[in-house]
Amino acid sequence: MKATILTIGDEILIGQIVDTNSTWLGEQLFLEGVQVTTMKAVADTTEDIINALKQGFEKSDLIITTGGLGPTKDDITKKAIAEFLEVDSYFDEEAFAHVKRMFANFGRETTEAHKEQCYMPKGVEILKNKMGTAPGMLFKKGDKYLLSMPGVPYEMKWIFKNSFIEPYLRSWDTGLSQVNKTIHTVGRGETYLEEQIRPIVQRFPEELSMSYLPSLGRVRLRINARGEDKLALESSVQSATSEIKEVLGNLVFGEDKDTLESAVLNAFRNANLTIGTAESCTGGNIARLLTSIPGASDVFQGSIVAYSNSLKEDLLAVSSEILKNHGAVSEETVSAMVQGAIKTLGVDVAVAVSGIAGPGGGTPEKPVGTIWLACGNAQEIRTKKLNLTKNRLKNIEYTTNIALNMLRQYLM
Amino acid sequence: MKATILTIGDEILIGQIVDTNSTWLGEQLFLEGVQVTTMKAVADTTEDIINALKQGFEKSDLIITTGGLGPTKDDITKKAIAEFLEVDSYFDEEAFAHVKRMFANFGRETTEAHKEQCYMPKGVEILKNKMGTAPGMLFKKGDKYLLSMPGVPYEMKWIFKNSFIEPYLRSWDTGLSQVNKTIHTVGRGETYLEEQIRPIVQRFPEELSMSYLPSLGRVRLRINARGEDKLALESSVQSATSEIKEVLGNLVFGEDKDTLESAVLNAFRNANLTIGTAESCTGGNIARLLTSIPGASDVFQGSIVAYSNSLKEDLLAVSSEILKNHGAVSEETVSAMVQGAIKTLGVDVAVAVSGIAGPGGGTPEKPVGTIWLACGNAQEIRTKKLNLTKNRLKNIEYTTNIALNMLRQYLM
Repeated sequence: MKATILTIGDEILIGQIVDTNSTWLGEQLFLEGVQVTTMKAVADTTEDIINALKQGFEKSDLIITTGGLGPTKDDITKKAIAEFLEVDSYFDEEAFAHVKRMFANFGRETTEAHKEQCYMPKGVEILKNKMGTAPGMLFKKGDKYLLSMPGVPYEMKWIFKNSFIEPYLRSWDTGLSQVNKTIHTVGRGETYLEEQIRPIVQRFPEELSMSYLPSLGRVRLRINARGEDKLALESSVQSATSEIKEVLGNLVFGEDKDTLESAVLNAFRNANLTIGTAESCTGGNIARLLTSIPGASDVFQGSIVAYSNSLKEDLLAVSSEILKNHGAVSEETVSAMVQGAIKTLGVDVAVAVSGIAGPGGGTPEKPVGTIWLACGNAQEIRTKKLNLTKNRLKNIEYTTNIALNMLRQYLM
Repeated sequence: MKATILTIGDEILIGQIVDTNSTWLGEQLFLEGVQVTTMKAVADTTEDIINALKQGFEKSDLIITTGGLGPTKDDITKKAIAEFLEVDSYFDEEAFAHVKRMFANFGRETTEAHKEQCYMPKGVEILKNKMGTAPGMLFKKGDKYLLSMPGVPYEMKWIFKNSFIEPYLRSWDTGLSQVNKTIHTVGRGETYLEEQIRPIVQRFPEELSMSYLPSLGRVRLRINARGEDKLALESSVQSATSEIKEVLGNLVFGEDKDTLESAVLNAFRNANLTIGTAESCTGGNIARLLTSIPGASDVFQGSIVAYSNSLKEDLLAVSSEILKNHGAVSEETVSAMVQGAIKTLGVDVAVAVSGIAGPGGGTPEKPVGTIWLACGNAQEIRTKKLNLTKNRLKNIEYTTNIALNMLRQYLM
C-alpha cells in the first residue's frame, strides 16, 4: 500500500510552523508497512487542495490530510473534500452532541463556530477524537481511501492511533514488508564513518540500502530493507548491524529509539553512580535533556544553573581567585565547577560547562564560541575546549551533545 | 514569483527526521515576497525526483531542492538533475580545490567520496558553501530557475543567505508584495479568541486574511496581506493589529519574532528585577528557554534543578515536615521552593515547579499529570495547580509555558 501525506495551511508554506505532523505520520505508516511516496504541503485554497487530492490519488491508495478542520474561519479542507468527492454536506447531530458534552465537562457553552464544525461531506465515516472537538473523517473513493484529521498534533495523533490504525489500516492489505535499523554514533563525521564501513555496505544484498543522517556532533546510520520475506529481511538487517557496530566500536551509542541522554542514564544506572550538572552557557539544557527521559530520577539528582559569577562562587565554590585570574570561561573554572557540583549536589560524577554562547560577549582572547567543559568525579577531572560559531542556539545544542558524550566516555 | 520547495530523502518520508529546512526556506522566501505554493518531500530515487521537478516547473518559476548532495552513497539528486535537464556531467576542478583547502585547514586529506562530489551537471552556476564540502548549484531552464543545496541545515542556510539571495533572487522580479503580522497570545483557546475579534475580522478589507495557530497553552494569530501596494498593505495590517491587541488586552504577550521567554525577560529588565527558577519536573526547561535569549544574563541569575527530595531540602530549604506532611508535589512545597530559590539564588522573583510528569509515578490522590507551580517574591507568592495528561514531554512543555506566564503576570 502506498500513501501520500498532505498538510494544509499557509502557515506551513510561509515557514511559520514546522510540519512535525507529517514526520510523525511518516514514521507510523512506515512501521505499519505502508510506503509513503510523497509528503506535500499546500495553501488554504480550495483549488490547491483539490489538485493535491487528485495528484495524490494518481500515485497512492491512501491520502492522509492534516489541518484545516478547526472551528475558525480559515478552515476550508472540508469544503474542498466535498467538492473533490462531488458530494453535498449534512449536519451531523452525533458529532455536535460530542462537542456539547466536551464543553459541558469544562462548564462552558458551545458557539456557532462549533456548530459549523459539524457539517460533514456525505459518505463520511466519523472517527472519534477524544482530545478535541473536530473529529477525523474517513472517505472511500473506488478502492482508495482519504483520511482527514485536524492539524493540532495531539488531536491528530489520538485519532490516528485510536480510531484509525486498528479498525481500518490493519484490516487493509499493505503489500511489501519493510525493516529498518538506525545506528546512532557520536564523535566522527559522515565521511569518516562511510569509509570505515564501506566494505560492509558494498557487500549488502540487493534489498538493503544505507543512509547517513548527520546532525550537530552526531551521525545516524540507517539500514533500510524492503522485500516480501519479512523474516529474511530482519535477519539481513541484523547481521549488517552487528558488522557495522563491530567496526565502529565506541563511536556507537545506541540503536533506533535510543538517545544520547538515555544511553548516558542507562550506563550510569548500570554502574550504580549518580550524576549532576553545573551549567552556565547551556542554561539547563543538559539537565533538561536528561530529565526528558522517564525514570531519570534514580541517576540524575539535580543541576545548578549558575548563570551569574556570584552563583558560581556561592553555590559551586569556584574561588574568586580563579574567576579573577582565569575568568569564568576557563579550564580552571569548569574544573572547580565539577568539584563544586559533586559536593553541592551530592553526586558521584558531574559535568560542567562555561562558555560564550554568543552572539555577543566575545573578546580577542576569548571570542564568541569559546566553550570549556569538564567532567569527572571527586578524584579525577577531564576537560575539553571548543571553538564554535557565533550561533547561540547551535552552540548550546552542540555543547550539550559534547557534554553528554563526556559523561558517556567517563564510564569507558 | 512562485516557488516550490522540494526535499529529497527517504529519511523524511519514513519520519526519521523533521523537515525544518523547508520551514526555514518558506519563511525566507515569504520575507522576500516569493509565494511558496508547494512544499514536497520525495524519496531518494531518480524517477521520483525527476517527476517532482517536472511538476514543480509546471506551477512555479523557482524550484529549490535540499538534500541528496552529500559525499555518501545514498545521494542521487545530482544524477537526477542532470537527467532532468538532459545534460552531461563534468569534473569541476575549482569545487575540488575548495574541498581540498577546507580539509587542509583541518589537517586532513580528501577521499574518493569527496572527489565524486565534484562532478557537476553541465550549465551549473556553482554557489559557494563556506560551511561544508558540497556547493550549492543553480540552473536555468527557459525562464525558470532550479536551486539545489545540501540538506545539512547550517550549510543550506549559509548558501541561501550568502550565495543566493543578494546576487540572484533579489535581482529577479518577485511580483506581488506580502505583509504579515503575528500576534502572540497565551491563556485562552482559539475559539474564545476568534469570538472576541470576529467583528474586527469581518470588517477586514479583501486583501487581508486571518489564521489561528494553536499550540500548548498559546495561540498565534496571523494577519496576512497580499497585493500590489506594499505601503497600503502595511497600513491595513497595522490598523488591524492595533484593534485586535486592544480587544485582547493582557492575553497578548508579543508580536512576530517575540517569544514568551523574551517577553518575560524584557518585562523584568524594564522593572529592574532579577529572576531565577527552582525546577523539579521541568528539569531545567524553564531556565533553558530563558537562557536561549541573547543577553538573558542581566535578568536571569540561575536555577536550582532539585530533582531529588534531599536537594529540595538542602538547596531550597524545603523543610522535611512539609515534604513529609504534604509531599514533594504540593502547594506547600512549591511555595517553600520559591522562598528557597529567592534566598539561594539571591534573586527578586522566582518561579517553582514540582509535579508528576509521567508516564509513571502517580498515586490515587496525585495522579500522573498533577503539577504545582508557585511564583512570587519574598513577601507574596501565588500558586497554581494543573491536572495534565500522561504524556511526559507535553506536560513539561505546557507547564513551562504556564510558569513563564506566571512570571509575566507577576508584573501586571
